[in-house]
Amino acid sequence: MPLQRLSNILDSVAFGRFITAVILVNAVTLGMETSPRIMAGFGELIHWLDNLCLVIFVAEIAAKLVVRRLRFFLNGWSVFDFVIVGIALVPGAQGLSVLRALRILRVLRVISVAPRLRRVVEGFINALPGMASVFLLMAIIFYIGSVIATKLFASAFPDWFGNLGLSAYSLFQIMTLESWSMGIVRPVMVVYPYAWVFFVPFIMVTTFAVVNLLVGLIVNSMQDAHGEEETQLTDAYRDDVLTRLERIEQALAAVSDQNAKK
Amino acid sequence: MPLQRLSNILDSVAFGRFITAVILVNAVTLGMETSPRIMAGFGELIHWLDNLCLVIFVAEIAAKLVVRRLRFFLNGWSVFDFVIVGIALVPGAQGLSVLRALRILRVLRVISVAPRLRRVVEGFINALPGMASVFLLMAIIFYIGSVIATKLFASAFPDWFGNLGLSAYSLFQIMTLESWSMGIVRPVMVVYPYAWVFFVPFIMVTTFAVVNLLVGLIVNSMQDAHGEEETQLTDAYRDDVLTRLERIEQALAAVSDQNAKK
Amino acid sequence: MPLQRLSNILDSVAFGRFITAVILVNAVTLGMETSPRIMAGFGELIHWLDNLCLVIFVAEIAAKLVVRRLRFFLNGWSVFDFVIVGIALVPGAQGLSVLRALRILRVLRVISVAPRLRRVVEGFINALPGMASVFLLMAIIFYIGSVIATKLFASAFPDWFGNLGLSAYSLFQIMTLESWSMGIVRPVMVVYPYAWVFFVPFIMVTTFAVVNLLVGLIVNSMQDAHGEEETQLTDAYRDDVLTRLERIEQALAAVSDQNAKK
Amino acid sequence: MPLQRLSNILDSVAFGRFITAVILVNAVTLGMETSPRIMAGFGELIHWLDNLCLVIFVAEIAAKLVVRRLRFFLNGWSVFDFVIVGIALVPGAQGLSVLRALRILRVLRVISVAPRLRRVVEGFINALPGMASVFLLMAIIFYIGSVIATKLFASAFPDWFGNLGLSAYSLFQIMTLESWSMGIVRPVMVVYPYAWVFFVPFIMVTTFAVVNLLVGLIVNSMQDAHGEEETQLTDAYRDDVLTRLERIEQALAAVSDQNAKK
Repeated sequence: MPLQRLSNILDSVAFGRFITAVILVNAVTLGMETSPRIMAGFGELIHWLDNLCLVIFVAEIAAKLVVRRLRFFLNGWSVFDFVIVGIALVPGAQGLSVLRALRILRVLRVISVAPRLRRVVEGFINALPGMASVFLLMAIIFYIGSVIATKLFASAFPDWFGNLGLSAYSLFQIMTLESWSMGIVRPVMVVYPYAWVFFVPFIMVTTFAVVNLLVGLIVNSMQDAHGEEETQLTDAYRDDVLTRLERIEQALAAVSDQNAKK
Repeated sequence: MPLQRLSNILDSVAFGRFITAVILVNAVTLGMETSPRIMAGFGELIHWLDNLCLVIFVAEIAAKLVVRRLRFFLNGWSVFDFVIVGIALVPGAQGLSVLRALRILRVLRVISVAPRLRRVVEGFINALPGMASVFLLMAIIFYIGSVIATKLFASAFPDWFGNLGLSAYSLFQIMTLESWSMGIVRPVMVVYPYAWVFFVPFIMVTTFAVVNLLVGLIVNSMQDAHGEEETQLTDAYRDDVLTRLERIEQALAAVSDQNAKK
Repeated sequence: MPLQRLSNILDSVAFGRFITAVILVNAVTLGMETSPRIMAGFGELIHWLDNLCLVIFVAEIAAKLVVRRLRFFLNGWSVFDFVIVGIALVPGAQGLSVLRALRILRVLRVISVAPRLRRVVEGFINALPGMASVFLLMAIIFYIGSVIATKLFASAFPDWFGNLGLSAYSLFQIMTLESWSMGIVRPVMVVYPYAWVFFVPFIMVTTFAVVNLLVGLIVNSMQDAHGEEETQLTDAYRDDVLTRLERIEQALAAVSDQNAKK
Repeated sequence: MPLQRLSNILDSVAFGRFITAVILVNAVTLGMETSPRIMAGFGELIHWLDNLCLVIFVAEIAAKLVVRRLRFFLNGWSVFDFVIVGIALVPGAQGLSVLRALRILRVLRVISVAPRLRRVVEGFINALPGMASVFLLMAIIFYIGSVIATKLFASAFPDWFGNLGLSAYSLFQIMTLESWSMGIVRPVMVVYPYAWVFFVPFIMVTTFAVVNLLVGLIVNSMQDAHGEEETQLTDAYRDDVLTRLERIEQALAAVSDQNAKK
């Protein structure tokens, strides 16, 4: 019984609004923490508010775990909340500045709370599997490109192509077209005049792959938008027409029989 | 009666053309004001023309207010004209160089006057609500990104990430891919070698969100273009076919009845 | 009679191939002219070939003018050829290095000769009118942006925003996102800290306008591709169904009448 | 008989997985070769593994050649494998660092082995012919642009526009919008103030051509996706409706005849 009541509270609209409000308050306090001037004046209050928000989040998730038990982990958004809130509880997390900075990721909880944002993000995630093949292809191209670039240019340009990681980063920069020529390829061509034979096709191939990703996304979205409503309507209409035509044929056959009998 | 006559004048084609002409003349004089050489020669004439245009605009809007009263403010384009012209009348506006520079916004009135341009702008504005969720998501991503960047990099790079505002500006620059690597991330990586773990996913996520905005725009436009004409035609055709089929079935039933009675 | 024969020659496939060959030869000789080493060795031959090509082009166009007279100027591609070839005949054109450089535009004649390329270019040109409104809007935005930028920043940054022309060029650069932040806006913000209030919305508005151009192009192309074939087929099918249904109703009415009479 | 057995082995799933594993092992060893530290420790082992992979690849292709003979060269992917593996066998290839670096291209064999990746690449390649006209147009524009840029700017800017090749490279950079203004056009305009008359239209024309490529790709993909399934369904349905209507008309005519005879 009390479990049922707890479940009702957790699913109530008011509780959802309360959690949203806590998320927004936490977003503001975490933002304020970046300002040394505000922290000098209200540092203690802000830290206290921040901890209060964390306590509320932990209590909320604990309550949900009690009510839903292992079913809690079947919902992707619940797991998302669990991880986001959990970061702050990792022992020693308060000591590492990086993990402290990640506390702001709690603001992402606003997505799991707002249905419209949730749908957008789910749309993004649903688009990913269709792009898997192209992503894998890009990964292969980047690996091959990194190996070639490292082998050819590592000795002369260790900062850009010194190892596979540096080369992959530089190639990513080149794919985004940022300073690819003036910043990277022209200096490289001073030492290796034919370096463009590698870089220009690399740009063309990766850009073409990205364009194909975009085209694929558009075509998929278009079909999704088109298919669901209209196709059902069309199918219903067609079934209707065909059954009626069949009934007419049967009725006509019956009339013809009646005539023949007379 | 005189109110009716005033209304007729305001709605007449000739008056619309006159206002368009005044807008274009004002556009030219405001452009000429940027040239010190022209101002040295004809400064007084240009200022006089500029003021004359302003007087005409104020008189036009006053007349419209008299005729339409509060209905004037129901039309978005009227409010737009009102604000654009009103800027020049703010007391002290002639003293502030920024507000003086904004007088050129009056040229935007040409949009409210030309129906084709109006339709384009209305198309832009109508596309905005469908993009609201993605925009909100982008705002959340930018807020989170700014807090993280400020916390991690403010001490070492105060010019780029010194506070939330500077970080948001730098992240906007990075999202547009302008000098993101050579200008920002490579210098940051000299101090924090793992900075790419933050920036590269940030670029991917924001670029993906922008791409999804674009895809959404295309799909919506396509459906708008498709739906209105063709869907109506198809629906009309389908209704026609179904009513005819029903009539045929009834007629056949009647024939069958006649046969049975005999 | 000789006019008819001349006309037949001009329209023959062989003559078209000959002209295409001359265009390609001319393209090569004009390309060779850029190399001082080749010119040192074969300069005279190349100039002679170049002049020979010009003579052939002039003769071709003269022949077409003789045959088609004023109808020659009704075809856009003929006018295009006439202007391209005519540039070389402008008195004094051989003296101006710019006009000499424009002789290479003759290679564009290959477009007017190859039907597939012609169709692509015609496709481009047909897409332009649908984009006129957005282009006009962009022009207005650029004019307003240039006036504001010149008024506000001309005194401190005369190289970038010294007059309307320089401002328009800088804003075009900013619209293409090239060095907009590190190159232009950050230096400007050192003097005017709120400059981003002008530039960031400018980038957003112009980018959004460009995106809408793209969306419009896609939707139009899609409808063109969709509409012509399929719509006709669908219309033919629908007309067929409706006439057949009407014939069936009439036949049924006739049967019912026959029954009633008996 | 043994040939048949060999053929069965080559076509077996297990053999395909084995070759995929060898490709992945080779990808890792070739990647490790870029690290001097790993090579210092395990250089000999890695070279030995690399050679072993090569031996397996050569044996595989030799076996396929024996089984399929000249039919081997009818399959594009087989030829692709043949060339990729063959590079390592070119006499002296081990001496040239560039050819040694190209050995990593063997990793591309993973595409010919994985059906999903194969389909993506085949999709890319199938999209190319539809883009041929626009590519040819781009080539013409680049040739003309290079000749003009070389003629006008070679003397003052030999590094950027010294000959046709350098100009084409610089124009490609300008088309990708990388540093086009701050890096190239502004410096050029210091010497030739009207250089923008050439560069700004060049950017507009090439960007517009690229956009049209994109639009064409989207429209084609959309029609491909739309056409295959749905069009067949629609055609089947329409044929069905029309045959049924015809049968009904004939049946009615028969009934009418029966009535008339009585």
